[in-house]
Amino acid sequence: MNRAAIYHEPDSRYCFAISDKMLVIRLRLAKEDKDAQITLVYGMKYEYYKRQQRIPLPFVGCDHLHAYYEICLPLEDVRLAYIFHVKQGEEEFYYSEGGFFDVYDFDLSYQTYFQMPYVNAVDIHRPVEWMGKGTFYQIFIDRFARGDFEKDDSYIDMAWSDKPTPRSFAGGDLTGITQKMDYLEDLGITALYLTPIFQSLSNHKYDISDYYAIDPQFGTSMALKELIAEAHYRGIKVVLDAVFNHSSHLLPEFQDVVVHGRESKYYDWFMIDGDYPTMKPLNYETFATVAEMPKWNTSNPEVQAYLLDIAKYWIEEYHIDGWRLDVSDEISHEFWRQFRKVVKNANPEAVIIGENWHDAYPYLQGDQFDSIMNYAFSKAILDYVTKKAYDGKWLAEALTNLRMRNTWQVNQMNLNLLDSHDTHRFLNQLGGDRDDLLLSLAILLTFEGSPCLYYGTEIAMAGGYDPDCRRGFDWEKVGTTNPFWVTVRDILRLRKTEKCLQEGVTEMVADNGVFMLKRHTAGVTIELRVNGGNENHPLPQVECLLNHLKKGQELLPKGFALLKYETERS
Amino acid sequence: MNRAAIYHEPDSRYCFAISDKMLVIRLRLAKEDKDAQITLVYGMKYEYYKRQQRIPLPFVGCDHLHAYYEICLPLEDVRLAYIFHVKQGEEEFYYSEGGFFDVYDFDLSYQTYFQMPYVNAVDIHRPVEWMGKGTFYQIFIDRFARGDFEKDDSYIDMAWSDKPTPRSFAGGDLTGITQKMDYLEDLGITALYLTPIFQSLSNHKYDISDYYAIDPQFGTSMALKELIAEAHYRGIKVVLDAVFNHSSHLLPEFQDVVVHGRESKYYDWFMIDGDYPTMKPLNYETFATVAEMPKWNTSNPEVQAYLLDIAKYWIEEYHIDGWRLDVSDEISHEFWRQFRKVVKNANPEAVIIGENWHDAYPYLQGDQFDSIMNYAFSKAILDYVTKKAYDGKWLAEALTNLRMRNTWQVNQMNLNLLDSHDTHRFLNQLGGDRDDLLLSLAILLTFEGSPCLYYGTEIAMAGGYDPDCRRGFDWEKVGTTNPFWVTVRDILRLRKTEKCLQEGVTEMVADNGVFMLKRHTAGVTIELRVNGGNENHPLPQVECLLNHLKKGQELLPKGFALLKYETERS
Repeated sequence: MNRAAIYHEPDSRYCFAISDKMLVIRLRLAKEDKDAQITLVYGMKYEYYKRQQRIPLPFVGCDHLHAYYEICLPLEDVRLAYIFHVKQGEEEFYYSEGGFFDVYDFDLSYQTYFQMPYVNAVDIHRPVEWMGKGTFYQIFIDRFARGDFEKDDSYIDMAWSDKPTPRSFAGGDLTGITQKMDYLEDLGITALYLTPIFQSLSNHKYDISDYYAIDPQFGTSMALKELIAEAHYRGIKVVLDAVFNHSSHLLPEFQDVVVHGRESKYYDWFMIDGDYPTMKPLNYETFATVAEMPKWNTSNPEVQAYLLDIAKYWIEEYHIDGWRLDVSDEISHEFWRQFRKVVKNANPEAVIIGENWHDAYPYLQGDQFDSIMNYAFSKAILDYVTKKAYDGKWLAEALTNLRMRNTWQVNQMNLNLLDSHDTHRFLNQLGGDRDDLLLSLAILLTFEGSPCLYYGTEIAMAGGYDPDCRRGFDWEKVGTTNPFWVTVRDILRLRKTEKCLQEGVTEMVADNGVFMLKRHTAGVTIELRVNGGNENHPLPQVECLLNHLKKGQELLPKGFALLKYETERS
Repeated sequence: MNRAAIYHEPDSRYCFAISDKMLVIRLRLAKEDKDAQITLVYGMKYEYYKRQQRIPLPFVGCDHLHAYYEICLPLEDVRLAYIFHVKQGEEEFYYSEGGFFDVYDFDLSYQTYFQMPYVNAVDIHRPVEWMGKGTFYQIFIDRFARGDFEKDDSYIDMAWSDKPTPRSFAGGDLTGITQKMDYLEDLGITALYLTPIFQSLSNHKYDISDYYAIDPQFGTSMALKELIAEAHYRGIKVVLDAVFNHSSHLLPEFQDVVVHGRESKYYDWFMIDGDYPTMKPLNYETFATVAEMPKWNTSNPEVQAYLLDIAKYWIEEYHIDGWRLDVSDEISHEFWRQFRKVVKNANPEAVIIGENWHDAYPYLQGDQFDSIMNYAFSKAILDYVTKKAYDGKWLAEALTNLRMRNTWQVNQMNLNLLDSHDTHRFLNQLGGDRDDLLLSLAILLTFEGSPCLYYGTEIAMAGGYDPDCRRGFDWEKVGTTNPFWVTVRDILRLRKTEKCLQEGVTEMVADNGVFMLKRHTAGVTIELRVNGGNENHPLPQVECLLNHLKKGQELLPKGFALLKYETERS
């Protein structure tokens, strides 16, 4: 038994409440010990020394190095004491906070048990109920659709179908999105994530000079209200982009510092090493090294109040359904804790999604974000589809690793994606193979979480890195005459209608070149089968909700099928 | 190489800022791999792909299962990317967030490096400067000293030297402590931790019925002001006990609920399962199952405001130097985060010490407590001293485990202790052996942290579990005619005066029955040598600051010596 690899930590992603009286407890062993039998020995804290209960801790899967065990435990009392009993062949022992014991002295257990000291209601990460129930659609506004032909369009300097440049404008706007709301509803979309809409000189608008004004290129206050009304009418949520890491250098407060230096009352709103901010040499903190994007000093209470008011304003005045947080990992935890309180007070069902490219556990414990843009998911899918050495077993392990990084709540709310405005189009990453793209989408839309499609993915739009991944949407490719589009729409609709795909417990199995991703609810299983091998794969005789590259009762290589069947599993 | 046992986590106790431009980075391997050579490969985040620096990661010690490596790294930039290079014999590889790589592709490193995304000033756990510089003294007030002979003493129902009962009163008070302030200063004490002083029916006063009133048994508002003034005059800090988990059932707000039930405006201040609180059957949340101690509903903002005002009041009005938090692990993180802000706003140098008996990492990340009462330290010392199988090597490993549980800041501020009002006297746990007690005290006072003596330990007071551990202080045993007292005083004075004992970097070595605990500062080392074996141990010819059971140049079994010498180590 590899004892040095055994890991558990109370009050963490290894032990967390999902409701007032329900706790999830996990244990990690080395992968080679995955046949061990684990028993949770638990009880009420104050009487643990004299009374314990025992329950098996089920094995849930392996990642590349470790085996995981997990249970969802109903609580009698909000104070829990517990240890683990581990048995493998002839070897058996107890694992506690005090280490390993061949014989465990329960009379002295208060010194060494693991504990959840008290499940306080206010500490529980409450899931946003609508998350995980359908599919997000990310819109880069200048390139999705133009609806307003009355506006001053002298800023538009590229034809819709031109290859975009870093600074070109194509004319997409909010009204364009509103006009496509029927399309989006029909497609099966249930939530929109819009890149920034606020006043800014750029086409992407990640450099904001007025957080209270919608950029006139994109529309008016009324246009946003219409967009949100039309979306909500169709049950579609709208999430906006909060750029709170940095502003534009044209922000009046920053310009005040440019003019008055240390005399400006906004001097401490930024982080400047000198009397005045200078671009050359750059003497203030910025996003990356971009002088036009001065970084907010979010340790300053005045800045905190300023940004928090913005966060509240758009929820209260426009009823938006949440915020996506730009460069969120470079902003303080302390600020995000305040941000969460403000947002959830304004609307408890508003979601908070961070842009963290790495393991974001320090932000995902219920006091800051609900979830993140899950780029690690994208990487796992890409490696699986494009690298010969990475088979279905590898993918199941990679995705198990991601699931075990986070709590149940976060896994349900994570914004899983293939690509975004910050990456190459996934189709390009796949070398242009549309079958691979469909297969990737099938996994994305079957996996637990809140999947997100980057605009145009449904028509297999191509594009390299920024600005090429931000081309104008080709509306001619939309419709039932485009089989790719039809397949994507069909999967999206299943995700929107099948409760099992929304709430089912995840199980992954890989067998002989075939990857199986199962979602189980009481009595029903939906199973995605992906043929990642080189030979045809026979399918069982059950209901097939959807398939691609299926021939008779066989899946061809790169084919997949979504199967539905009854199970005894509860 | 045991790869499944390798562990690192950014933005955690494995990677944390100790100042604006200084980061501590740790790595854990399996113990059997302790001879591995580790290199930190680090650089500025946005140019990491093209430029990295390499620096060895020094080995710092083993616990029972793992080997630890640690470096304190000055930062060029507040955004750090890093991975580890691990080499052992012929085997070598890189370790990143993406797992293990034989060859690491730095061009794609943004997908897999570990990172400290941005060191935000407001997230740094700032140490309380006076902590760690001397020794705390915990006083159970009814039993330490009586100073006020004018007060109504009809409540006193035991003679000072009687064996206490759970409900007996001996008459100790605040004025008694003030009158002993010269004694405490002379003894080498630099901070007091007083058990609760607020209005309460009990002798221990952990059931408070008025948080704004000092219990008349203990004295007046003026008596507390005098105590604090006399303490501060001598450079002695005063920490009070905050009982915010529960109140007394006699609290007027709880009594209002007893009378008015759901109609009371305080109904939601507690957690009651019914229209009225009833003691039999007990239908409300309490401390443990004690009906006389109803638990506060600290998820209620009104309760939060009520308790936070108390926290602030005693700091602002009386200038106390911090709070010890009773049953702190059963109160929400959310409350403690607010508590920290209120306390640190009132006095940034006020310390916050939790009563957490277990690994308290979720509370010790800089947003809640500064430290805890380190009962795990006490257990390690007890096991070492009393169990034959646990030798100096075992102790070094146990203490390394405790050090690696926490950040540098927490280790410096942790309230290390042998015993308290909640345990048997340590002397009793040792079976009455005074040599063992001295040896334990020597380790306590040499180890990094903020050691705390329970009143009477300096005269080897005996006592079993509560109430026996709360006997009246025997003042006749104090003085230079008592060699035990003299030795304790001498160690306490060294702790107060020797900078090296306060700030020195810790190193532990065990060799042939001898345990060596070294504290290093630039050019100077102070070393505690403990002879835990059965044979005499020769001492080197260096300055001996203090010793016990030394004969000539040899330590007898159970003997110890504090040595001081110059070193080249910086």
